[in-house]
Amino acid sequence: MSDGFGLDHLPYAVFSTQGSAPRVGVRHADTVVDVATVRPQLDRPTLNEFMALGPDAWAEARAEIAGLVGSDALPAYPVDDVALHLPFVVGDYVDFYASLDHASNVGRIFRPDQEPLLPNWRHLPVGYHGRAGTVVVSGTPVVRPCGQRKGPQEEMPTYGPSRRLDIEAELGFVVGVGSELGSRIGVDEFPRHVFGVVGVNDWSARDIQAWEYVPLGPFLGKSFATSVSAWVTPMAALAAARTDLPAQDPAPLPYLAGGHAFDIEVEVVLNGEVVSRPPYRTMYWSPAQMLAHLTVNGASTRTGDLFASGTISGPEPETRGSLLELSWGGKEPFAGDRTFLEDGDEVVLRYSAPGTGGGRITLGDVAGRIEPARP
Amino acid sequence: MSDGFGLDHLPYAVFSTQGSAPRVGVRHADTVVDVATVRPQLDRPTLNEFMALGPDAWAEARAEIAGLVGSDALPAYPVDDVALHLPFVVGDYVDFYASLDHASNVGRIFRPDQEPLLPNWRHLPVGYHGRAGTVVVSGTPVVRPCGQRKGPQEEMPTYGPSRRLDIEAELGFVVGVGSELGSRIGVDEFPRHVFGVVGVNDWSARDIQAWEYVPLGPFLGKSFATSVSAWVTPMAALAAARTDLPAQDPAPLPYLAGGHAFDIEVEVVLNGEVVSRPPYRTMYWSPAQMLAHLTVNGASTRTGDLFASGTISGPEPETRGSLLELSWGGKEPFAGDRTFLEDGDEVVLRYSAPGTGGGRITLGDVAGRIEPARP
Repeated sequence: MSDGFGLDHLPYAVFSTQGSAPRVGVRHADTVVDVATVRPQLDRPTLNEFMALGPDAWAEARAEIAGLVGSDALPAYPVDDVALHLPFVVGDYVDFYASLDHASNVGRIFRPDQEPLLPNWRHLPVGYHGRAGTVVVSGTPVVRPCGQRKGPQEEMPTYGPSRRLDIEAELGFVVGVGSELGSRIGVDEFPRHVFGVVGVNDWSARDIQAWEYVPLGPFLGKSFATSVSAWVTPMAALAAARTDLPAQDPAPLPYLAGGHAFDIEVEVVLNGEVVSRPPYRTMYWSPAQMLAHLTVNGASTRTGDLFASGTISGPEPETRGSLLELSWGGKEPFAGDRTFLEDGDEVVLRYSAPGTGGGRITLGDVAGRIEPARP
Repeated sequence: MSDGFGLDHLPYAVFSTQGSAPRVGVRHADTVVDVATVRPQLDRPTLNEFMALGPDAWAEARAEIAGLVGSDALPAYPVDDVALHLPFVVGDYVDFYASLDHASNVGRIFRPDQEPLLPNWRHLPVGYHGRAGTVVVSGTPVVRPCGQRKGPQEEMPTYGPSRRLDIEAELGFVVGVGSELGSRIGVDEFPRHVFGVVGVNDWSARDIQAWEYVPLGPFLGKSFATSVSAWVTPMAALAAARTDLPAQDPAPLPYLAGGHAFDIEVEVVLNGEVVSRPPYRTMYWSPAQMLAHLTVNGASTRTGDLFASGTISGPEPETRGSLLELSWGGKEPFAGDRTFLEDGDEVVLRYSAPGTGGGRITLGDVAGRIEPARP
């Protein structure tokens, strides 16, 4: 598993070895390199202080670390021998809805008689706030949530475990340098603020969500857990993955003009089998547009804010990033007889992208196993 | 202004005097009593550490402080001579929609041809996550937000300052003792977890909100600012304000059974004139039900989590808690020619309740002045 972890990648995590305090490490080949001595801000149990230093400091530290890994200057541990922790303290968590194919599919499944896209969708990156306190690191078990569900044929809601537990394969962006209340982050200012990316699985209980979400949006159908990768890939490692956005029609308002896509491949692995390959490059809204929109009303941002893309789905059936879409609302089983998640299922989201060294880099994956509902 | 600040109240704030570090103070009559020496957790720039101690520690400290205020044992400063700060670090911020009259009014204004209440409303406390990072303390100016708006007669959205800036008079509940991921807080466990209440003004840009909010709920129409009172009234001070909930029909599911209302009077003051008197006792869902619902899916809670009631509106026109309702969607001016907020307007929300000493206590007010949009 050392592929994709060369000197052109060097993602960050917070790790500990037995009996030692959590601190920042960098992945190189099959090892976690302890970089706590490189900067005082790296000798911390979260990346926040380091991320707050800004892009010049990120670049200097990255260059210095690249010169030290593989030497004897820094301790290195086999990656299988360390514990990985949530890599940053999450400020606010915002989830967007930036895939045209995903939004269209959801519209067709839930509102088959209407236009699949709602009127605002092509004008702004639709998004909402999720629960920051339940963002968990990859590997954390996910307990099947309970709540109120009411099917269209049922007269009254009932209480019980979710019967339509789902994944959402997403990409997340981590704010390093925040912004003041009353100010805005222009599309071109994205590199000054965003430190890196994480993989995101926005677990979703579709039955709970369907009953609760009007008129104020998803709440308990999402807030039980959102998993992120332990590894944060710095934006610098994605320089070769930058690509053009798909055409945007109509042209966005001037405050939203600009930004670019990233050519990141995603694999959805269900119990060891790849069931979908969502392509991030097909996303309609760029992350720079998402951040510009998020702050256009003067909302401040903080170090550790996380904003995610929403489900990544491409145009072909085998590129859909949720089980809701892969099973078309549960009506068309995929991969044999699969629809929604069963207890014991394990989902792993894998991500890779072109690296600056000519090969590919492997972003941090996001794993989670479903545990039965608690009585 | 000493009325309502007797020994039966003793609300907490974080204050500083010129040149001194912020620490916790308690209001008594016209003074702020410095209680930093009473507990190490009170010698902090936020209430979080103290709130995390739990109800026994809260009760002991309250009794001790009640015995010391008015003596020479603790320094006291005139309340007008100190600066007040955001009293706690906000974890997650959730806003509910718990007033039957408010939800019905909004339904009638926005969907005049349909049933005012959506099907889920009487079955669960509808809520959503707001932006924790833009919760500000009373007195913080509110800059008119910009964003996308599209009126029903307009073909395309435009960008610019909100033309329908509004208030929402609410009450907020502050979590002191959190709960683990996968666990739930039953309705009866409310007193073990909730430390106290704050006044809340959930500023709202109705035109931005109306365009953005389908299908994921309010986002930029709310996230520019939410003001809370500087003073946190401990639950113990509201013991005499407890009262029965209005009848709930249908009976809630068992996990939502219980809880009680609070007889708290609210005044909405616009440029010095009382324009509405929302009665908190008319709220349909109790705060204990809100917290039970918030955690029924296993979502964890943290010290500093804030959940608010949603707009408090009573059944009579003069008890409505938003300008949207007071002006019936902007069509029926109130207080002369008023509809939505103008630049320079100052809004103060005042709260009072029966105290345990036989009189009334004055909860912390929430003030904010509208500044013009920034170009």
